[in-house]
Amino acid sequence: MHSDRPAVTVIGLGSMGSALAAALLERGHETTVWNRTAHRAQSLLDRGARLAATPQEAIAASPLTLACVLDYDVLHAVLDPVAGSLTGKTLVNLTSGSPEQAHQAAAWARSHAADYLDGAIMTTPPGVGNPEMMFLYSGSHTVFEAHRPTLATLGDPLHLGTDPGLASLYDAALLGLMWSTMTGWLHGTALVGAENTQATAFTPVAIRWLTAVAGFLATYAPQVDAGRYPGDDATVDVQIAAIDHLIHAAAARGIDNALPELLKSAMQRTKAAGHGSDSYASVIEILKNPAANK
Amino acid sequence: MHSDRPAVTVIGLGSMGSALAAALLERGHETTVWNRTAHRAQSLLDRGARLAATPQEAIAASPLTLACVLDYDVLHAVLDPVAGSLTGKTLVNLTSGSPEQAHQAAAWARSHAADYLDGAIMTTPPGVGNPEMMFLYSGSHTVFEAHRPTLATLGDPLHLGTDPGLASLYDAALLGLMWSTMTGWLHGTALVGAENTQATAFTPVAIRWLTAVAGFLATYAPQVDAGRYPGDDATVDVQIAAIDHLIHAAAARGIDNALPELLKSAMQRTKAAGHGSDSYASVIEILKNPAANK
Repeated sequence: MHSDRPAVTVIGLGSMGSALAAALLERGHETTVWNRTAHRAQSLLDRGARLAATPQEAIAASPLTLACVLDYDVLHAVLDPVAGSLTGKTLVNLTSGSPEQAHQAAAWARSHAADYLDGAIMTTPPGVGNPEMMFLYSGSHTVFEAHRPTLATLGDPLHLGTDPGLASLYDAALLGLMWSTMTGWLHGTALVGAENTQATAFTPVAIRWLTAVAGFLATYAPQVDAGRYPGDDATVDVQIAAIDHLIHAAAARGIDNALPELLKSAMQRTKAAGHGSDSYASVIEILKNPAANK
Repeated sequence: MHSDRPAVTVIGLGSMGSALAAALLERGHETTVWNRTAHRAQSLLDRGARLAATPQEAIAASPLTLACVLDYDVLHAVLDPVAGSLTGKTLVNLTSGSPEQAHQAAAWARSHAADYLDGAIMTTPPGVGNPEMMFLYSGSHTVFEAHRPTLATLGDPLHLGTDPGLASLYDAALLGLMWSTMTGWLHGTALVGAENTQATAFTPVAIRWLTAVAGFLATYAPQVDAGRYPGDDATVDVQIAAIDHLIHAAAARGIDNALPELLKSAMQRTKAAGHGSDSYASVIEILKNPAANK
């Protein structure tokens, strides 16, 4: 296969790595793949991918290599022995890990004269290739700009900053937001479900409500940056009064209340720290400084 | 003031009740107001509202009365002595409370031959009058349809069902979703803030991510209704592995981890109940049945 688009190598063919390679093939990139167990590659080979026999051969095939493996132990096991072959090339590391692991990998790449970006994929494998899905990158802005057209094949590429740990840090923060939101939704779904409301009836209302909640976040973000939380719309005191309705209604229906009880406790500690008349954004004060408020 | 629009009475002039009356006046409704302390009414009187001397006089002035007071104790203190004046009229109760309180108020209204809707306002006072904001109603569908044009003055009116407790139940469920989401966002904001990322930089990414999360909820809702949770996109096992990145990154930065620790515990109990290979939606099983899984 020949095209105007740059050749790309994908190392790691789990469900996410396979989705990355498939999106690249779909858009006409000459795509070389490598995986520890080669049989994972078959459906990609059927679509025109080239299978490299070794990681070294895979890296040699393209100016840009995407790595998406299980964790950093696997990443280093695969790449350390062939680090020299990365010299003068670019490694975009989409393996999930910590900011500290990203820093170490960036230093390792630099020591081999390889360009490096760290990345985080904010979608599931079926979302890869959808231009609305966010792919987060951190590291050299020049390297990012050089490869932006190729990265845009995978989703919408956002450059967060030159600190290579930022993509992992945002990833962790956004996943925390996701789990919190999904668990709050499941708790609410269990509550209305106890009165025979279907999840498919409640969820469109919940999704619409999340749009309003997003508006609250946009209002509160500048408050967090300023460290001042005017409670013009709704105060912590008002939320404390309201959460008892939720706790009582859920308890009466036999639903686990650990989550709302924790949220109430956070609100009460926020009030105890002097923020009863402030907005909910002031809860960040006790999250940032737990020891002072427990 | 005269208009084609029906007269409306608003009882309770806290910040929310005042916003309701202001929206009605803005759209040309003859609006009568009553509050325990009349001075709260002045700015509304300046805009054309009529001040009733007593709750009885207020109710007599309009076919439809909206009540929005602090709680059900206040509601009954104000309305019980004048219940007879509600006969043949409609009371829409927007006071926050439990489904049980809504049921009692509906029965009380029925005993006085008054039509009754229970309602919940899913916005802050500044959002009243914005047609994108949800106002939830439950009770007679006929009564709802009769007053829909007037209720549409306040926001987008949604009728949830004939059970008068549904508006309160949804209200509690949606507020729980809000607190969970806001606290997850604040935790993430504290995490990136520890690396000098401004809340105003992180929040647009977080809001965009919430759109993707909303897509997950839409995927998971039919799974909840079916009681089957295929883990095609991401399993509970995968989430358990990922949440440690968040917990470690936040702990290393001195941030309170009670929320992610609770979420991890819920995931672990879900796995222990046999859902490790299922989607995150299976967490509802341990929320619905906490005693069996603790």
